[in-house]
Amino acid sequence: MEQKARLAIDMDEVLADTIDKFIEVYRQDHQTEILLEEMSGKEFHQLLPAGLDHSWRAYINSPGFFRDLKVMPGAAEVMPELCKKYDVYIVSAAMEFKNSLVDKLDWLEEHFPYISWKNIIFCGNKIVDVQIMIDDRIRNFANFKGRSLLFSSPHNHLITEFERVNNWHEVATKLL
Amino acid sequence: MEQKARLAIDMDEVLADTIDKFIEVYRQDHQTEILLEEMSGKEFHQLLPAGLDHSWRAYINSPGFFRDLKVMPGAAEVMPELCKKYDVYIVSAAMEFKNSLVDKLDWLEEHFPYISWKNIIFCGNKIVDVQIMIDDRIRNFANFKGRSLLFSSPHNHLITEFERVNNWHEVATKLL
Repeated sequence: MEQKARLAIDMDEVLADTIDKFIEVYRQDHQTEILLEEMSGKEFHQLLPAGLDHSWRAYINSPGFFRDLKVMPGAAEVMPELCKKYDVYIVSAAMEFKNSLVDKLDWLEEHFPYISWKNIIFCGNKIVDVQIMIDDRIRNFANFKGRSLLFSSPHNHLITEFERVNNWHEVATKLL
Repeated sequence: MEQKARLAIDMDEVLADTIDKFIEVYRQDHQTEILLEEMSGKEFHQLLPAGLDHSWRAYINSPGFFRDLKVMPGAAEVMPELCKKYDVYIVSAAMEFKNSLVDKLDWLEEHFPYISWKNIIFCGNKIVDVQIMIDDRIRNFANFKGRSLLFSSPHNHLITEFERVNNWHEVATKLL
């Protein structure tokens, strides 16, 4: 049997809508409205008012933060098809925030139960032996020699040197 | 600056003495004495008496099981030297047992605090892009094209087709 090509898929801002959660918690807890339209080329925390600009790390470290993120639009439809054609690995640079690990596993089990634990990788540096990588952070492409697909997220809007996918529909068009 | 070669090091039975913990819990909880000398070529659970032969999975799933493992003899001395010469990654196939994840991180932080979170990988299949891998499970060498070093553990004693290191002293001799 022919071996399927390996495809690594990031979680935050690719499978899971972390920015939506951030916008929501700052609206609720701090009456601070961050608009997606203002985020182009910036990190979320750069838009926070003085005094709140380090608070985002406490949220990321809170048990539960990653448990109820929304699935990015289209991912639920495209992922089963990708899994037929590719050996799909979920690769998340989660290791800095130890309280996120179980939340992320439970979230994957809820939304993508057909992904085996064998195909889930939590790491720091993404030194994975795969042919294709979908990620919103170009630092994860630094030493990667395969095909890199930069998944659009506000913070990376101004980057031009990588092949880009703007949404899951474009992932399907390029890879299926 | 010349890039260091990447070296992946397994946790259970390589850095951490999981078998010692198993022997201890079965002695304490079940008055069952398992002898290391009887384990050659066998998995620990194959030596358990009927009725207890599936109980090991419950232990592995218990919060705390991996938190107080002993460091394998010699690892504490050799690891800092390896980290000078190589880009060392800790790679553990921990993902099947979600309660082990934080325990394993805390254990690494206690015994090997100089290993950055960026260099820790929890996974299922070990599809890491490294040049050398030290592991006690040959299944982790299956698709690996680099140098594989089989770290001796009772269950792998009868395997002959891989370069073997019997202990951390031999790791130092071969790699330093």
